[in-house]
Amino acid sequence: MKVLELNLPVTSENDREADLLREEMRRKGTLLINLMSSPGAGKTTLLSALIRALPEYRIAVLEADIASSVDAEHIEAFGAEAVQVHTGGMCHMDAQMTAEAVHAVSVKNPDLLFLENVGNLICPAEYDTGAGRNIMLLSVPEGDDKPLKYPLMFEKSDALIITKTDTLPYFTFDLEKCAGRARKLNPGIRIFPVSAKTGEGMEALTAWLRSEAAAWKQK
Amino acid sequence: MKVLELNLPVTSENDREADLLREEMRRKGTLLINLMSSPGAGKTTLLSALIRALPEYRIAVLEADIASSVDAEHIEAFGAEAVQVHTGGMCHMDAQMTAEAVHAVSVKNPDLLFLENVGNLICPAEYDTGAGRNIMLLSVPEGDDKPLKYPLMFEKSDALIITKTDTLPYFTFDLEKCAGRARKLNPGIRIFPVSAKTGEGMEALTAWLRSEAAAWKQK
Repeated sequence: MKVLELNLPVTSENDREADLLREEMRRKGTLLINLMSSPGAGKTTLLSALIRALPEYRIAVLEADIASSVDAEHIEAFGAEAVQVHTGGMCHMDAQMTAEAVHAVSVKNPDLLFLENVGNLICPAEYDTGAGRNIMLLSVPEGDDKPLKYPLMFEKSDALIITKTDTLPYFTFDLEKCAGRARKLNPGIRIFPVSAKTGEGMEALTAWLRSEAAAWKQK
Repeated sequence: MKVLELNLPVTSENDREADLLREEMRRKGTLLINLMSSPGAGKTTLLSALIRALPEYRIAVLEADIASSVDAEHIEAFGAEAVQVHTGGMCHMDAQMTAEAVHAVSVKNPDLLFLENVGNLICPAEYDTGAGRNIMLLSVPEGDDKPLKYPLMFEKSDALIITKTDTLPYFTFDLEKCAGRARKLNPGIRIFPVSAKTGEGMEALTAWLRSEAAAWKQK
């Protein structure tokens, strides 16, 4: 087998803008959470479940999509404000785009501000958005080999949410193997297997989010 | 709901290189097929099934991945030559990268040359690779709303293969609705629901591939 190695052009000065946004969010006591995954891994469904499970928080959502506003409409139906960002074909959100969206939110200093990044396991991992926490979703149907194929996403994430666990009986997905591969890339990663459909695992996830939101306000 | 519109920087001169590669493939009688999908939609599994189902063809595979060589090893185990391309973080293949990979294939003038593009519904649709046919896979667990969210991919594809149809009972995926949304974007798109696991729908797909390969050699 032949292997060709190609190179990625390096991006610039995004990190400085990301740090500025993170500082601003820190001052305002808003934990900005960057949610990343493949298309169809269940980001919007999970967000709807989290909005219901965390009624004591002011929550707003930034929805990044190539073109449609389907997800933002869905989120607003659950009672949280949503700002829809159309990335015009761009496969990720960078810090400047995120800051623009953050400043379009009407709710004053929300406790939790979720950025639903573009559905993609590659580009979003390459750009610091300025979020306080990075969370990735991997759905059971995608397969347990994804840490081998998209390592950067697993390295950059504070938490890995394994979604659609209710479908485990129908796929050959080894939870232990997947967790082991993720921890090999990122020993500190928090792993939450959940099913938004059955509610399984949601309590551990919401407990962690509560503690992260509290820690963010203290510092 | 607020909607922010951002703009994509336009790419250049890739189209000319794509046309040159397509011409070369035409002269050699090799149908280059660009396979695109989300991560985990089943490109490698489908390719393995096609290699088995089309023993009368010389087949080679170009595997594009960020980093790993998992898929190429899998394909070689099925008896077809595989060239692994590591895109170095790049989220798509362009025509120049594809030409480089094509020229690394040892098999002389294969009948079918599959490019398994990077797992991503966005960037690969934006770059003409020089392929004679573009095929996208959408797996049932990803959801039937994907044509609404990633329209360009559906517009650019000659065929849509809906994979993992054996899991239809476990998901709320409406085949008719999905097909209708895809045809609204691309009236001529061919649609093949298949399960590589049970073999359902594979015959219609291989019949179409045979007729496309024959047509490519005639022109």
